Amino acid sequence: MGVLILSSLLQQCGGILTILRKAKPLVHHITNYVTVNDCANMTLAIGASPIMADAIAEAEDIARLSSALVLNIGTLNSSTIASMLVAGKAANEKNIPIILDPVGAGASTLRNDTVARILREVYISVVRGNISEVRFLAGLSSNTKGVDASAADEMDNAADVAQRVARMFHCVVAITGAVDTIADAERVVHIRNGHPMMADVTGTGCMCSSLVGSFCGASPDWFEATAAAVLCMGIAGELAFETAGQNGTGSFRVALLDAVSRMNQNTMEERGRING
Amino acid sequence: MGVLILSSLLQQCGGILTILRKAKPLVHHITNYVTVNDCANMTLAIGASPIMADAIAEAEDIARLSSALVLNIGTLNSSTIASMLVAGKAANEKNIPIILDPVGAGASTLRNDTVARILREVYISVVRGNISEVRFLAGLSSNTKGVDASAADEMDNAADVAQRVARMFHCVVAITGAVDTIADAERVVHIRNGHPMMADVTGTGCMCSSLVGSFCGASPDWFEATAAAVLCMGIAGELAFETAGQNGTGSFRVALLDAVSRMNQNTMEERGRING
Amino acid sequence: MGVLILSSLLQQCGGILTILRKAKPLVHHITNYVTVNDCANMTLAIGASPIMADAIAEAEDIARLSSALVLNIGTLNSSTIASMLVAGKAANEKNIPIILDPVGAGASTLRNDTVARILREVYISVVRGNISEVRFLAGLSSNTKGVDASAADEMDNAADVAQRVARMFHCVVAITGAVDTIADAERVVHIRNGHPMMADVTGTGCMCSSLVGSFCGASPDWFEATAAAVLCMGIAGELAFETAGQNGTGSFRVALLDAVSRMNQNTMEERGRING
Repeated sequence: MGVLILSSLLQQCGGILTILRKAKPLVHHITNYVTVNDCANMTLAIGASPIMADAIAEAEDIARLSSALVLNIGTLNSSTIASMLVAGKAANEKNIPIILDPVGAGASTLRNDTVARILREVYISVVRGNISEVRFLAGLSSNTKGVDASAADEMDNAADVAQRVARMFHCVVAITGAVDTIADAERVVHIRNGHPMMADVTGTGCMCSSLVGSFCGASPDWFEATAAAVLCMGIAGELAFETAGQNGTGSFRVALLDAVSRMNQNTMEERGRING
Repeated sequence: MGVLILSSLLQQCGGILTILRKAKPLVHHITNYVTVNDCANMTLAIGASPIMADAIAEAEDIARLSSALVLNIGTLNSSTIASMLVAGKAANEKNIPIILDPVGAGASTLRNDTVARILREVYISVVRGNISEVRFLAGLSSNTKGVDASAADEMDNAADVAQRVARMFHCVVAITGAVDTIADAERVVHIRNGHPMMADVTGTGCMCSSLVGSFCGASPDWFEATAAAVLCMGIAGELAFETAGQNGTGSFRVALLDAVSRMNQNTMEERGRING
Repeated sequence: MGVLILSSLLQQCGGILTILRKAKPLVHHITNYVTVNDCANMTLAIGASPIMADAIAEAEDIARLSSALVLNIGTLNSSTIASMLVAGKAANEKNIPIILDPVGAGASTLRNDTVARILREVYISVVRGNISEVRFLAGLSSNTKGVDASAADEMDNAADVAQRVARMFHCVVAITGAVDTIADAERVVHIRNGHPMMADVTGTGCMCSSLVGSFCGASPDWFEATAAAVLCMGIAGELAFETAGQNGTGSFRVALLDAVSRMNQNTMEERGRING
């Protein structure tokens, strides 16, 4: 996309944050028990309101009350899979955006079958995963990281994969990594924020998906909302490294939450690095 | 209550902390998976010993070993509901205090039915919730926060609601919020400690319930013990804001745990703001 | 063991860390929901890669992909017990090391029966527990801490208990406490690192077991790997206390993760205190 359009996208992203902080959308999560606390705190930090409810007996009730639904398959079991489907269908009926985080797709039959079933039975608004997980969704081999791939190759590859999945499932796709790629059927942008230390803390991907849920709960344009969330997470990673990276991963993790809680439109516009 | 009585209550509260740190009561939790780690760390920070055990096959065994039992309905499922009832009955037989945290009561039929069933089948010693949750227990509409309600109105309202629930279920009731209200059938006190930033961290309510369990496990006077726990949490919120509030919610959360771990009788008596 | 052998052991331990950071072993955990996030972050901090997967439908798949398997019984339920057995058998077939953390063994019939069943059906490589838990495995009364026991008595006792369990189950045993004891059928060493404040943070035992899994996933000598992991955890406790102990348990917990993420061979060799 052209430079002017991207500059405008950056402003839009910052604007959604301002709207989000006023709207305080309720973000329903059916998620894994490893990073659930971080997801809740990240949702609060950006200004939304988290609710984690995975019992089949209430998943539908809670989904209907919410402004967004995050389905994260990090630690599946038969009961939460059923709840995801029920909550997803309820959210679809009310046009509530649904974010799918296909954690570990490709690593086990359970995960593969579950992702396939969710995508068949529920209309997903945004998929957020790493390149390997999203390649699995595209029907490609998920073992992508050839040792010889250059960064440029990987970025081109991510754009292709993201757009392929976006078209297959009529959704927005975010592939996060050293460079992040956001695509829908027509558009592709890359975000060059973030820091490698984010990979040393568990759940930065899950937390990013919670931010996507929070932003989508505050904006009808899910492409922009997804870009805004990924920008926030990346910028927060940079700020956290500047503040606390030298101390170690424990301090970095705390500083990541700090940075999201203090994020504002100005910081997003000043530090955001989006290009087409 | 008179000023002298309240001053004496403040001293009693500080005294219970000193007893607690010597007695190190074992506090059994059947709680949600979102904030369970924070509840365990908060229980340790105040000087008690946490045990989290929700399997039906051991809930009764563990309850009998414990000095207090915390039942938190934040993430229910059919198996933990059964465990809560079994553990509750075992605790009742031995007169072990039980704290009920009715997280999200009013938000789903599952939560509403579970709270009603627990209160019917188990004798609860202390209920700790927000105004909306406790209003639900009182049989009132849980959507309480009228935009025009003044702070004074809300406080009066909390006192009425707390005492109504205290009389219905013969228990102590703590409603926490901008001002905290502690009531039993005869007494009502308000605590004016705390900081708004506590609402920006997930689980501060759950952690407060763990402190109530810890204090009740160290004192036969559950009204005083509940007041002491709510005081500790509020003062810790103030100290955490002074230390780390400017950094963001991640640092504030760490400082909250720090402040509880360093709490002592002097700090409680100096900073505690209880009035009738 | 002689001083020269112990000095060589200390160098071996440091060397395994260097290997671990290059190999980045995948460490599969079937663990409790209380400390699971800390276990994942600790695994990342030392340089390994955590995966938490407890569904019976994928436990075997994931176990086969992994370099080590950690079984932690902190919050059991019938479904995770079955997954532990299935994953354990799959790991045994591929000679993948299995670490058993018998959290609370002795405290309930469920835990006692589960530990006994795991030890009967799965070949365990390393047991890591406190003295009370390991005494239970030895068939001894688990209520060991006589008020009159001197530190020397306790250490001798730990050596006997550790070696008894090591011989019963043909495994390495680590008993962690004020002094840590590592034993196999022939060898016993004691590690005198660590800090009492580690007991004020939930899950330091679980995190230590995750480190044992990480080191065992990087070295075929599970005795040395276990010693290396226990050394790392102890030294990290000392460093964390020096950095943040005065602030309270929240900051100490963050600093513990920081210290592990910054651990290196030099620090291990300089600060490690192993003796026979």
